[in-house]
Amino acid sequence: MSMFENRQFRLAARPVGLPKASDWTYVKEPARPPEDGEVLVGVEYLSLDPAMRGWMNEGKSYIAPVKIGEVMRALGVGKVVESKAAGFAAGDYVSGALGIQAYATVKAKELTKIDPRLAPLPVFLNVLGMTGMTAYFGLLDVGEPKEGDTVVVSGAAGAVGATVGQIAKIKGCRVVGIAGGAQKCAFLTNELGFDAAVDYKSADFKKELKAACPNGIDVYFDNVGGEILDTCLALINLHARIVICGAISQYNNTTAIQGPANYLSLLVNRARMQGMVVFDYADRYGLAAREMAGWMAAGKLIGKEDIVTGLESFPQTLLKLFSGENFGKLVLKV
Amino acid sequence: MSMFENRQFRLAARPVGLPKASDWTYVKEPARPPEDGEVLVGVEYLSLDPAMRGWMNEGKSYIAPVKIGEVMRALGVGKVVESKAAGFAAGDYVSGALGIQAYATVKAKELTKIDPRLAPLPVFLNVLGMTGMTAYFGLLDVGEPKEGDTVVVSGAAGAVGATVGQIAKIKGCRVVGIAGGAQKCAFLTNELGFDAAVDYKSADFKKELKAACPNGIDVYFDNVGGEILDTCLALINLHARIVICGAISQYNNTTAIQGPANYLSLLVNRARMQGMVVFDYADRYGLAAREMAGWMAAGKLIGKEDIVTGLESFPQTLLKLFSGENFGKLVLKV
Repeated sequence: MSMFENRQFRLAARPVGLPKASDWTYVKEPARPPEDGEVLVGVEYLSLDPAMRGWMNEGKSYIAPVKIGEVMRALGVGKVVESKAAGFAAGDYVSGALGIQAYATVKAKELTKIDPRLAPLPVFLNVLGMTGMTAYFGLLDVGEPKEGDTVVVSGAAGAVGATVGQIAKIKGCRVVGIAGGAQKCAFLTNELGFDAAVDYKSADFKKELKAACPNGIDVYFDNVGGEILDTCLALINLHARIVICGAISQYNNTTAIQGPANYLSLLVNRARMQGMVVFDYADRYGLAAREMAGWMAAGKLIGKEDIVTGLESFPQTLLKLFSGENFGKLVLKV
Repeated sequence: MSMFENRQFRLAARPVGLPKASDWTYVKEPARPPEDGEVLVGVEYLSLDPAMRGWMNEGKSYIAPVKIGEVMRALGVGKVVESKAAGFAAGDYVSGALGIQAYATVKAKELTKIDPRLAPLPVFLNVLGMTGMTAYFGLLDVGEPKEGDTVVVSGAAGAVGATVGQIAKIKGCRVVGIAGGAQKCAFLTNELGFDAAVDYKSADFKKELKAACPNGIDVYFDNVGGEILDTCLALINLHARIVICGAISQYNNTTAIQGPANYLSLLVNRARMQGMVVFDYADRYGLAAREMAGWMAAGKLIGKEDIVTGLESFPQTLLKLFSGENFGKLVLKV
């Protein structure tokens, strides 16, 4: 048996609405020693993402749902403590789908080695990880911003949104962020260089967004769905592109999803709404990460992480994503 | 004064829901003689289109609304009876936005000459007119069908839908039409060569559509919106294209438009939903009409017109579009 005691959160039930404590089982057991081709990873940081809510639901999606009784799926970074795989040695740092647990026994081919001298570990879950890749490919490949375009992003103080906005600035766009509360809005304009930020909790949100987009919207990067998507649809320009990256306002619905009532604005404006999943761009992650690292080194791209310590806090920490409470990339430090 | 007595339907009020008799004023008055650059056209056939309902509403759209008191906008074909414009002579046949009236005094530059020896006049309002252009560019430029794709079209027994399906067959696709009632469905498969037709009024519509698309949907050409759009969204394949051409199920709503609740299928399937307006392709109408005329001559493309006689019947005849009663291109014979 392994000398490492593992601690895990397993999915106990499919949540209805917000995940609650009884949807999880907390398990302590020895970590399974690696077999040939596997490594045992000591998990250090875990990425908490809105997409995780979708993985808990039954039914066809872009990835299989987490099964009842399985360790909850999550991306993470950690250090190899034991290797039975060529090319991996104890002490190597890796990233991959490690799961909500203290130790992960994983096939080596599902891991990526990372160099901790390049950036602090949590950055590999943010700008240099799937979050950054989602922002990069969603904005550039699907949104196709041109210099001078007005780019609007929702969930703008979240991990993907903040990166989208900064890349759009690098590309010469007017960038407007939508976020909840004055503090987040100030962060977007003062620290990230957004041209404007609009608080969706404001009673005059629609008017304020319109005022922040005097030339209309050319690209809308949607992380939230619901009313905000509809408000943006009403402001799009001819040939606008709407990137559907997520719909956090709808993930915990216990009633039907709210479809965009203003979708006929796509017709009027000959515009398109297109979905994206980051996995499709895997063959270009390396290129993108190099470009993003360059922007970070040049001070043009800032990552902000919201790090919460303690694996045990997972059930409550996850909820910060849906309450609008987190600020930057939500990371759980094991 | 003119020797021609005109008869016109003018918009009297903006309709709430279905247009009713009191939303129109019927006016008899002498036709205005043409001034320099204008011609006087004796209107022979008028095109009745779902889009007309949108033109009656106030508010920004892809074209200015018809003003209260103005002759109702409509495309038509007719014969020049008097010309004050170079290049046009009495006896010439023309098409253009003639309006719901017996005589139209129009700027010559807004008219297109047509050759009545090529096809019966109503065909210039159907396959060789805006209807055909909408089908051609919407399907080929926005839908981008590839050989072997499954193409689904709603409003399939309507003018645009029937043409979309036939062009998709010419391009080597599996074509499934959605229409209301057994007679229309039989027409699609027996006379137009669709691979399958599904009756949206059937209690088992969703099951039947799924069975008709064993390989899922690659292109969905949407003329109707509402539940049918949602049903198709649930069946799309990876990288599917949804063409938003119209939403006839929603045009007479007195409540909010029903947005597509299944729009997150765009995300899951990395699919796109894109609007189109035929006017954007004006520089290629000639090319498309030549290709379509060739297909008609070769017997590969059939146009069906539903011709109602009598300008005075306009208010009731228009309603056939929204009751599902018309079958083929609805044309009013003046």
